[in-house]
Amino acid sequence: MRIVFIGDVMGPIGQEMLTDYLPKIKAKFRPQLTIVNGENIANGKGITRALYKLILTSGADVVTMGNHTFDKDELYDFIDDANKLIRPANYPANYTPGKGFVLIKVNQITVGVINLQGRVFLDAIDDPFAKFEEIYAEIKDQCQYIFVDFHAETTSEKLGFAWSVDGRVSAVVGTHTHVQTNDARILPAGTAYLTDAGMTGPYNEILGMTKGKVIERFHTHRPVRFETPAQGPGQINGCVIDFSEQTNQAKHIELIHISPDHPFID
Amino acid sequence: MRIVFIGDVMGPIGQEMLTDYLPKIKAKFRPQLTIVNGENIANGKGITRALYKLILTSGADVVTMGNHTFDKDELYDFIDDANKLIRPANYPANYTPGKGFVLIKVNQITVGVINLQGRVFLDAIDDPFAKFEEIYAEIKDQCQYIFVDFHAETTSEKLGFAWSVDGRVSAVVGTHTHVQTNDARILPAGTAYLTDAGMTGPYNEILGMTKGKVIERFHTHRPVRFETPAQGPGQINGCVIDFSEQTNQAKHIELIHISPDHPFID
Amino acid sequence: MRIVFIGDVMGPIGQEMLTDYLPKIKAKFRPQLTIVNGENIANGKGITRALYKLILTSGADVVTMGNHTFDKDELYDFIDDANKLIRPANYPANYTPGKGFVLIKVNQITVGVINLQGRVFLDAIDDPFAKFEEIYAEIKDQCQYIFVDFHAETTSEKLGFAWSVDGRVSAVVGTHTHVQTNDARILPAGTAYLTDAGMTGPYNEILGMTKGKVIERFHTHRPVRFETPAQGPGQINGCVIDFSEQTNQAKHIELIHISPDHPFID
Amino acid sequence: MRIVFIGDVMGPIGQEMLTDYLPKIKAKFRPQLTIVNGENIANGKGITRALYKLILTSGADVVTMGNHTFDKDELYDFIDDANKLIRPANYPANYTPGKGFVLIKVNQITVGVINLQGRVFLDAIDDPFAKFEEIYAEIKDQCQYIFVDFHAETTSEKLGFAWSVDGRVSAVVGTHTHVQTNDARILPAGTAYLTDAGMTGPYNEILGMTKGKVIERFHTHRPVRFETPAQGPGQINGCVIDFSEQTNQAKHIELIHISPDHPFID
Ligand SMILES: [Fe+2]
Ligand SMILES: [Fe+2]
Ligand SMILES: [Fe+2]
Ligand SMILES: [Fe+2]
Ligand SMILES: [Fe+2]
Ligand SMILES: [Fe+2]
Ligand SMILES: [Fe+2]
Ligand SMILES: [Fe+2]
Repeated sequence: MRIVFIGDVMGPIGQEMLTDYLPKIKAKFRPQLTIVNGENIANGKGITRALYKLILTSGADVVTMGNHTFDKDELYDFIDDANKLIRPANYPANYTPGKGFVLIKVNQITVGVINLQGRVFLDAIDDPFAKFEEIYAEIKDQCQYIFVDFHAETTSEKLGFAWSVDGRVSAVVGTHTHVQTNDARILPAGTAYLTDAGMTGPYNEILGMTKGKVIERFHTHRPVRFETPAQGPGQINGCVIDFSEQTNQAKHIELIHISPDHPFID
Repeated sequence: MRIVFIGDVMGPIGQEMLTDYLPKIKAKFRPQLTIVNGENIANGKGITRALYKLILTSGADVVTMGNHTFDKDELYDFIDDANKLIRPANYPANYTPGKGFVLIKVNQITVGVINLQGRVFLDAIDDPFAKFEEIYAEIKDQCQYIFVDFHAETTSEKLGFAWSVDGRVSAVVGTHTHVQTNDARILPAGTAYLTDAGMTGPYNEILGMTKGKVIERFHTHRPVRFETPAQGPGQINGCVIDFSEQTNQAKHIELIHISPDHPFID
Repeated sequence: MRIVFIGDVMGPIGQEMLTDYLPKIKAKFRPQLTIVNGENIANGKGITRALYKLILTSGADVVTMGNHTFDKDELYDFIDDANKLIRPANYPANYTPGKGFVLIKVNQITVGVINLQGRVFLDAIDDPFAKFEEIYAEIKDQCQYIFVDFHAETTSEKLGFAWSVDGRVSAVVGTHTHVQTNDARILPAGTAYLTDAGMTGPYNEILGMTKGKVIERFHTHRPVRFETPAQGPGQINGCVIDFSEQTNQAKHIELIHISPDHPFID
Repeated sequence: MRIVFIGDVMGPIGQEMLTDYLPKIKAKFRPQLTIVNGENIANGKGITRALYKLILTSGADVVTMGNHTFDKDELYDFIDDANKLIRPANYPANYTPGKGFVLIKVNQITVGVINLQGRVFLDAIDDPFAKFEEIYAEIKDQCQYIFVDFHAETTSEKLGFAWSVDGRVSAVVGTHTHVQTNDARILPAGTAYLTDAGMTGPYNEILGMTKGKVIERFHTHRPVRFETPAQGPGQINGCVIDFSEQTNQAKHIELIHISPDHPFID
């Protein structure tokens, strides 16, 4: 089993990088399952139906989200039909449309994909540690593999989660900071881990937003409208993970980073 | 000019990794200048006189700090004599002992080393962007190179700072998250950049603190005493940067990461 | 039915104010039920067995807590036997000793007392809005009156909660900011409301902590050890609420504030 | 000398309460100086030229602001001509239009009015404690009285500031939480103090925003557009402070709170 994961796609440049490179990445790595975080694909804030479809036609099997899930009201129109889209599972159960995990059949094998969101320096939604246990109890006997996109700000919450589930989950990959970390590893009990996959979007901006605006806010501390630029060089970030068919444990995790400084190599 | 930077040294295992590997790293890369972040060297919180000396005898020329600078009261006893120790320059000028930058002579060349601290999700000290401009105006004519350890939580504040100073500063290396990022690059106007150098300490813990305690806090949300373990495998993280003697611009930046999964290679 | 509530008791001066004035307040108002917030009674941080008993012998029937509940380890020794002590009900159920509400018999009448904690600018524990609904479903048929101590930082979370439960709960009184608010009122459906009861402790300090230390932290942004002073004038803050025996709705809410500027009047 | 201060005016209902009651309040108390916080007057977010004029024609001599100062872009068009409008003085000096204090001549007497903003749980602008010292050194010899609107979230930062300036400033009145506190007092060295003046706007909403929307956000944690209602009962909050002409110290501070539960009394 091989899974490719691509981090937060940001605005028009992110869309372009995804449609250009995801097919090439898939041709190179030939994953059985491809997962893309789409929380920022619509100008940095949320997702539309057309962009959800764009991610799927680019080659994704599952779309994960994060704290920007509901930024575009349009999502309410199609989230119930969006079978391949999951939003953080620990949004309040009684109030939140959509679902927090999905089981995907790959040949004879079932992979559970879970989306969770951290709470440190983010909104106080439900406990991601507790919500995981709930979902895990429900799906563990139905899945050979479980992949978690843990969307969070701090390294400690992501690492805390990963060490809590080591050996029970196939892989924990973090998202949200938009910068790829260099700590990909296999934890002792067999869980693949990466603190942050990084983002897919502009290479010469900040978070994927026009850098002049971000810097203006740091200088002035006044309201500034952030924008996702439509021009300029792009990057695509993610990882590819291999799992043993015998033990279902992770065998190998490798970073994907393509940018002007690191061109794609076949 | 070649500079080696080593990220936040955490507790006893961090001390051991530093004394074991910094000499080897220096022998391998032969830097003209070596900088080590020491804000966590004393059981995760601050620094003592003995540990300050340990960093220097391990091979560092400058010790930078961060939000944990003043956790050990003992620092007040020796900070005025600690010529090689700098703390974030943007602590309030009227109240803070110590200094925020230092000029180091390397052969005929002067390197300015500045320590700054971000404010997003950290304490609201003085403006690091404004404080940089102040220091830069003061030292730019006295230095051939300027190195900044920008100690901050978010990727946006670090990137915002780096893009603000691109071409004026030789290198901006981030610290504080304790996880190394994979975005080392040379910005267009010649500044070397890395969002986070990562930390030096335990390999199988969280932030360098015993992982069971960190996880206990996420589960219980009650007070938990964090500890730096004394046993277990270690890691050392940092980077090495080369600068052109002609233009003083950065030519190359490379990550240093040594751990059981990535053994040191001569 | 008349209930007296006294806000967060801070350290030695708070203890003294409580033992001096609570008997006088009770003699004056003759409440059927007296509730005291004790989260800060032990030098600002938590509670001990002796101080729990002190609150009860001063005249309290129930002791509520807050974010400082577990600051003193000694609480673990007696929380299971402390029938009159409740801690915020929305700490994680699987991990937290003690209980979050209590039913008290007053003559023939049962009063439910619930302690909840907000999450805005406080730790991300479980959802206080959802936890209330759970407890309410469980106890509503067993109680004539329900009193909630909602321990939170912001006015919006306290008001949001109160308006959510208006008519279902007899009274919502806020704690945590240590400053009494002047917005006591009866909401349209009959719930008595006060954003913050204020604290019981030093009159000439900040939050009940020695003011020089608090100011030093604002000036220096360095670690400062806060202390609860043992000397100096005190204040006691709270409120008294009357309920209709016919409708069980609140009829009247009145502030209690005793300090050198506002001496106790019989 | 008598000063009337009115807290944050919120949207249409706040405008109505101000135009209806400020003339009556002035007729009753006959202050020499009237100050109104206008940061929320335009639908909760910022101020327009027309609304700035409305505040002045209602009877204010000075308009103070807060963290919402720059929410309406229109302010940039007239801030340089708005002689009676001050925004928090501790916004970055090099980048912020407008001014942070103003000297007002009342008969032969000069009153300095300063606007400052706290940083705890608010944006990290410049140090309000340090900025005050700077302004104080500049104006103290030109003013008989100094009034500070300290716009901040926490009671500790407001109290910390007030105790820092006791005896040097005539009055410190807090704003921002939109709930009036009940701790008006004269500090030992003669400074009048009130943690929060409260707001001027809807009586049956939250923060002055439609309560259903605020509650929806607490329930769902999804994006919700907040609105200032145009219908419904209102409240106006503030205080009136008397100063000795001999010593310039505060002699008396009294709360102003008018609402359906507390009708205006001549
Ligand atoms: Fe994102
Ligand atoms: Fe995100
Ligand atoms: Fe650190
Ligand atoms: Fe740090
Ligand atoms: Fe308290
Ligand atoms: Fe509290
Ligand atoms: Fe306001
Ligand atoms: Fe405000």
